[in-house]
Amino acid sequence: MNRILSLCALLICLMALPVAAAESRSGPEAARHIVASLEAAWNRHDMQAYGELFHEDAEWVNVVGMYWRGKPQVVKAHTVFHETIFKDCRLEGRELTVREVAPDVVVAVWTHQQDAYRTPSGNLQDKTLNRLTLVVSKRGGQWLISQGHNVWINERAEKSNPVNQR
Amino acid sequence: MNRILSLCALLICLMALPVAAAESRSGPEAARHIVASLEAAWNRHDMQAYGELFHEDAEWVNVVGMYWRGKPQVVKAHTVFHETIFKDCRLEGRELTVREVAPDVVVAVWTHQQDAYRTPSGNLQDKTLNRLTLVVSKRGGQWLISQGHNVWINERAEKSNPVNQR
Repeated sequence: MNRILSLCALLICLMALPVAAAESRSGPEAARHIVASLEAAWNRHDMQAYGELFHEDAEWVNVVGMYWRGKPQVVKAHTVFHETIFKDCRLEGRELTVREVAPDVVVAVWTHQQDAYRTPSGNLQDKTLNRLTLVVSKRGGQWLISQGHNVWINERAEKSNPVNQR
Repeated sequence: MNRILSLCALLICLMALPVAAAESRSGPEAARHIVASLEAAWNRHDMQAYGELFHEDAEWVNVVGMYWRGKPQVVKAHTVFHETIFKDCRLEGRELTVREVAPDVVVAVWTHQQDAYRTPSGNLQDKTLNRLTLVVSKRGGQWLISQGHNVWINERAEKSNPVNQR
């Protein structure tokens, strides 16, 4: 009987391990994990898993400036688009920078490629390189997304970038 | 003599007041003040005052996805553009939302109109409505910008915004 109880206790400890590991991540580690999870959830078009990456008060500004306020709006908008314009559209990461801006707050800038898709008005949007800024914060022991803001990179404009000029 | 010394002491105290007031602002108050200062500095094309609103490690992603890392790059890029394409271009605020995401960190989303201008390649960019996300943080007692990310709002796309649909 004691052996069974010990085994049960061991099993409970082992089951608890992943949660404990997630909570002990550093901010930069947590941000990298969230970006990887976001990419995976998008590519599976699994908007439930996608939504689980956000705090309840999270906000999002997309590539055409739509502004979604609160997790229910962020999830609703992404769900509608993944059932329609994004149902065959995948993301592929290119570059990720993460940096702590305060205790428990990390800013991630994720450059990624987005497949071509048809916009809601039926126009072909060719594949693009996008740059997504995420504010990731730890609240109640959980690292989640507080804010997202995305933009299309205009690769022709890059030759006029003052920072690249001599 | 004593009266003169007292007057001098009073004057010194009065001169110190604005700094003390700035440091005691709440996060949302500080974020609103920074947005007002950013708009004013932009409209005076005063890139020194503009630069003073940023932390040393601040980053910026602009409307075409250019990515400037560190205050020197942010200031250099804005200075070059204000000497050329933005020299007659003004901003005008439309809507501002601010929200605390952690102790000493506020996210501001500022919707504003930008005047028409000619791009570096000479094309006319008509006036636009832009949406700017700012991460404002308090470090060493000072509220300054840690991160900026801007985007053009596509007003025609707004009718396909899932959050506005029934």
